[in-house]
Amino acid sequence: MASPAVRYELLSVDPSGARRGRLHTPHGTVELPTFMPVGTLGTVKGVDIERLADTGAQIVLGNTYHLALRPGEEAVRSLGGLHRFSGWEGPMLTDSGGFQVFSLAHKRKVTEQGARFQSHIDGSLIDLTPERSIAIQEALGADIAMVFDEVVELPAPPEAVRSAMLRSLRWARRCVDAAKRTDDQSLFGIVQGGLDAELRAESAAGLTEIGFAGYAIGGLSVGEPPADMYRAIGFTTPHLPADRPRYLMGVGTPRDLLEGIERGVDMFDCVMPTRNGRNALAFTDTGTIRLRNACHTLDERPLDEGCPCLACRRHSRGYLRHLFRAGEMLGPMLVSVHNLTHYQRLMEAARAAIEAGHYASFKQRRLAEWGFAA
Amino acid sequence: MASPAVRYELLSVDPSGARRGRLHTPHGTVELPTFMPVGTLGTVKGVDIERLADTGAQIVLGNTYHLALRPGEEAVRSLGGLHRFSGWEGPMLTDSGGFQVFSLAHKRKVTEQGARFQSHIDGSLIDLTPERSIAIQEALGADIAMVFDEVVELPAPPEAVRSAMLRSLRWARRCVDAAKRTDDQSLFGIVQGGLDAELRAESAAGLTEIGFAGYAIGGLSVGEPPADMYRAIGFTTPHLPADRPRYLMGVGTPRDLLEGIERGVDMFDCVMPTRNGRNALAFTDTGTIRLRNACHTLDERPLDEGCPCLACRRHSRGYLRHLFRAGEMLGPMLVSVHNLTHYQRLMEAARAAIEAGHYASFKQRRLAEWGFAA
Repeated sequence: MASPAVRYELLSVDPSGARRGRLHTPHGTVELPTFMPVGTLGTVKGVDIERLADTGAQIVLGNTYHLALRPGEEAVRSLGGLHRFSGWEGPMLTDSGGFQVFSLAHKRKVTEQGARFQSHIDGSLIDLTPERSIAIQEALGADIAMVFDEVVELPAPPEAVRSAMLRSLRWARRCVDAAKRTDDQSLFGIVQGGLDAELRAESAAGLTEIGFAGYAIGGLSVGEPPADMYRAIGFTTPHLPADRPRYLMGVGTPRDLLEGIERGVDMFDCVMPTRNGRNALAFTDTGTIRLRNACHTLDERPLDEGCPCLACRRHSRGYLRHLFRAGEMLGPMLVSVHNLTHYQRLMEAARAAIEAGHYASFKQRRLAEWGFAA
Repeated sequence: MASPAVRYELLSVDPSGARRGRLHTPHGTVELPTFMPVGTLGTVKGVDIERLADTGAQIVLGNTYHLALRPGEEAVRSLGGLHRFSGWEGPMLTDSGGFQVFSLAHKRKVTEQGARFQSHIDGSLIDLTPERSIAIQEALGADIAMVFDEVVELPAPPEAVRSAMLRSLRWARRCVDAAKRTDDQSLFGIVQGGLDAELRAESAAGLTEIGFAGYAIGGLSVGEPPADMYRAIGFTTPHLPADRPRYLMGVGTPRDLLEGIERGVDMFDCVMPTRNGRNALAFTDTGTIRLRNACHTLDERPLDEGCPCLACRRHSRGYLRHLFRAGEMLGPMLVSVHNLTHYQRLMEAARAAIEAGHYASFKQRRLAEWGFAA
């Protein structure tokens, strides 16, 4: 096998277990831990590509399921691939569509071959298999592709969790066998196994045996309490190779990110900063702010005094509240930019704390500032 | 009377009659002719304040009627006035609400005192008079305020047009008498009189006798054919003082702007670039483009090769079409920025053509490029 397109570099490990690393990709280097904004359909909703770079984002995620439906992977390929199509010149990652089949598709039927379901857009019948997911992701051409996995809703019977985990392993192997674009695209495996420590360990071992450029933790943040999720992360990462990046999929709140980092996670993605931003919920250094609340009407302060984003540089809370009340697009635009900037500043501070070797106290201080009891 | 807050400087007149001028305001200088983007509720829809500056906009319009309803002029005043509220540090102009009373308000009743109507937001009963309009505009604090006028829909019986024109003159006088904020805000009169040359002349004479820092042409682009509008502009501007700026309200298409400039107009405003932008209609150097048309699906070209805007710098027509098909906010955002940039580039080219003394041939060439028969 040729040297992988994506290469991980471990820089240091904090006493807490938090890792400071670096991901080298064909489109540039990513400082880890990192948060990946979600560009579902080739755009992070409400944020243009230059503002997105301004937030500090280093790598962007695209959704295979959504892009395959609209505009279709061949249209993206014809327009130069996902980088050129979206205008994002830095590193990119595409998911496999497995999670969207689980969360969005109608009349889903999953067999050993793959998933057959109805499009959530027009009801048309679609087959998604490991081979098809890889073919789509190769057409999109992100730096990192993900294996196609089977996700189950939690709680679920132990047998269902085990069965999906084992099938995901077989599918992971099929993804590797199907992958042709290995010169400029690397494949990450996805650990499944629900909240069961033994299943997670078995999944991690199986994937490690196949061998991937990176390892994701999938099937979490699907309805279980946060404490259960933190525990599951904690008993999964020790089974992952130390010389590969670890990616916690679809997570999460600022607190989730800090908890994940402490348990050795390097990468995250979530729609939370943009989805909440569109709904007038802002993340700040002192906790969340609901801008629709009347108390902000005449508030001249920015969301965060120390935030360099456009919203904080130029506008008051009173103005932002007005934008949401009046239904102006600029409200969702500005608070999405602010929230993404908040997440990136948090990652930047986390990286600095790991480098300085005091991640645990950094995390405790942040949680206290956000109002969590010690 | 103290020296007016806003001062006009005539630089040169082209053989065609087109004027190259300059408007000095408390918040900076505006090169004329100019196009003012419309920031109805303290934001140009879908365009953040720094992107707006990037389009080349030099002066922005705010709507008194809308801002009085949401968030209310006292909230704007409390948050530092319209400049600080919106984040736009350059020159601003507010309209008087007269046109919105005519176009938006429900159950409108107009008497000599003023207009009584129901809010289009919540149906609440509102009185808008010349005095009240000025009070609101002083709270908003734009560099230029407009007199409160009575607008009639065209076609209308000659007596109705004449009656509204004469009432608008009486209201203009009341606006001058009501104005207290004269140190950093100037008032523009509004010529009415429909499509009748004598009424327009009478209105212009009456306003000039009162004396304003600038003169607007109102009551056009309200349903009449473009040729009638061009004719009405042509027989109105000769009656306006040469040493004051002329502002054609609510106009218009790129062609309308070029026709207006040839007839001696200096300022324009219109929602067309942003409203059309939100609806996937792009103005380009070779005419309009409907991005929803299937022919653009795989088109790798930008909207305009020579345009420096974000949309043209970064994105293909195929990508822009995809954004509209997928309902992504970024589509309206990008095409609004492009269209505003197109308008500003057109004004920049018009100013250069006037300076060079060949405006008529410039106009003819542009019309031909847009596909208008010579």
